[in-house]
Amino acid sequence: MSHPRFLGFSRSDGSKGYGLVSGDGVIDLSARHGARYPTLREVIEADALVQLARDHADQAPDIALSEVTFEIPIPAPEKIICVGVNFPDRNEEYKDGQAAPSNPSLFIRFPRSFTGHGQPLIRPPESPQLDYEGEIVIVIGKQGRRISEVDALSHIAALSLCNEGTIRDWVRHAKFNVTQGKNFDRTGSIGPWLVPFTDESQLTDIKLETRVNGEVRQFDRTSRMIFSFRKIINYISTFTTLVPGDVIVCGTPTGAGARFDPPIWLKPGDVVEVKAEGLGILSNTIEDEA
Amino acid sequence: MSHPRFLGFSRSDGSKGYGLVSGDGVIDLSARHGARYPTLREVIEADALVQLARDHADQAPDIALSEVTFEIPIPAPEKIICVGVNFPDRNEEYKDGQAAPSNPSLFIRFPRSFTGHGQPLIRPPESPQLDYEGEIVIVIGKQGRRISEVDALSHIAALSLCNEGTIRDWVRHAKFNVTQGKNFDRTGSIGPWLVPFTDESQLTDIKLETRVNGEVRQFDRTSRMIFSFRKIINYISTFTTLVPGDVIVCGTPTGAGARFDPPIWLKPGDVVEVKAEGLGILSNTIEDEA
Repeated sequence: MSHPRFLGFSRSDGSKGYGLVSGDGVIDLSARHGARYPTLREVIEADALVQLARDHADQAPDIALSEVTFEIPIPAPEKIICVGVNFPDRNEEYKDGQAAPSNPSLFIRFPRSFTGHGQPLIRPPESPQLDYEGEIVIVIGKQGRRISEVDALSHIAALSLCNEGTIRDWVRHAKFNVTQGKNFDRTGSIGPWLVPFTDESQLTDIKLETRVNGEVRQFDRTSRMIFSFRKIINYISTFTTLVPGDVIVCGTPTGAGARFDPPIWLKPGDVVEVKAEGLGILSNTIEDEA
Repeated sequence: MSHPRFLGFSRSDGSKGYGLVSGDGVIDLSARHGARYPTLREVIEADALVQLARDHADQAPDIALSEVTFEIPIPAPEKIICVGVNFPDRNEEYKDGQAAPSNPSLFIRFPRSFTGHGQPLIRPPESPQLDYEGEIVIVIGKQGRRISEVDALSHIAALSLCNEGTIRDWVRHAKFNVTQGKNFDRTGSIGPWLVPFTDESQLTDIKLETRVNGEVRQFDRTSRMIFSFRKIINYISTFTTLVPGDVIVCGTPTGAGARFDPPIWLKPGDVVEVKAEGLGILSNTIEDEA
């Protein structure tokens, strides 16, 4: 049996909701539970993902998937924290002569830097260097500070995918920090949905792949991550309290467009797909900003 | 006549509110307007700061200031963006041989990395290197993207102060980005209050000073900032849409504890005060984490 899939969506009238994917339709959970849980963040805070999936498993869909627009699953998490340089060969790509890092590099993105599955990533007029980065997303389900590696996985509520789209020349636009190049509006995506995390095998050794126009550009397995999911949660929670709904984007394999010689940037009309076992395919086209 | 001062606070029962400072008391605005404006963020979204100040100017205070705890004025802004290296001599302090930057370095802090005026900054067990950075805060009042320098100041709703407290060794804990050292829970502060911004002279050339146990450690004037308030708003809004309630922390003068030889870190019992003309004094003690 496949895992339940929770999506955030908007309707044609612009109103937002969330629900369960069922075949080619959506069971609208926000219509039934929206007063109690305005968004999936509150569902997760109430630890209600698995129960909702069970309660509505046999229900007929309310809306066709084709009638809704996918939005990022959690519209306003308290935090979106991204891990840099977390797969083999990525450190070498920096060509700065530095040894492999002993702690994960971290940066922060705002929700508005992302769009949902099926929506275009936006190439801004400031730069042609829009690049893809396919990544696994974990969503925190239980509050904690200084979470031990042993306990770490019990703090994960759900999984998803991210195209951590980047304006490459703007990550080194100033003296330090990648903030700018990681936060152009709607240059990345999260989705297509959240899959409840109930078993370690959903993360231990899964394939992660990014394709551009059908061509495989990034491919690796989570077992080869430099910093494990356990270590990431342990490390981040050393300094900040993780809370339900927090989103952690866990790093990308080698093979982004910047690594080609010459670099290959995304251009309008391209289709980028990020795919991982058990999580589906996050697909976006590219458009120039209107 | 002095400018109105809007504070966020918590009562002894833990409930939160906001109000206007009046003498040594607080006019509780949340009790009167909380349904419409749950926090000062919504007051600012409605562009209602000046009107509320006018409407309640002659009112008697409801609570003594001594009965409330100051909280950060906007509890959950969409963004808190900090500018690094923005006063003369700060670039030289990095001793990395690099020329002065042509664009501002930016990093992001989470609200929970800050506490309010009068509350202790927390030194975590992971490091003794807690350091101060006194800074001016601007709060955005009007949404915008690619805001011109000419229009920039019209997007500011209010001003405040920040002690952008930092765990110094954790800003270089990994390969790049200062995220970690800037985001330990409750290591910085914002406040004591918001002052509505109604005239450019409130920002143009004001004194900014940081004192530790009464000794002046940082002192400079905003007219000497490398990147002006106009430029900061223009630059940030190039990549992200600024929205009402967004907080921008504008950079610190030379003289943080890290710059002494040997460095002088903050320790329990120290009192740090950040002071600027027209904005009051943001004061915090230091405590070890319990």
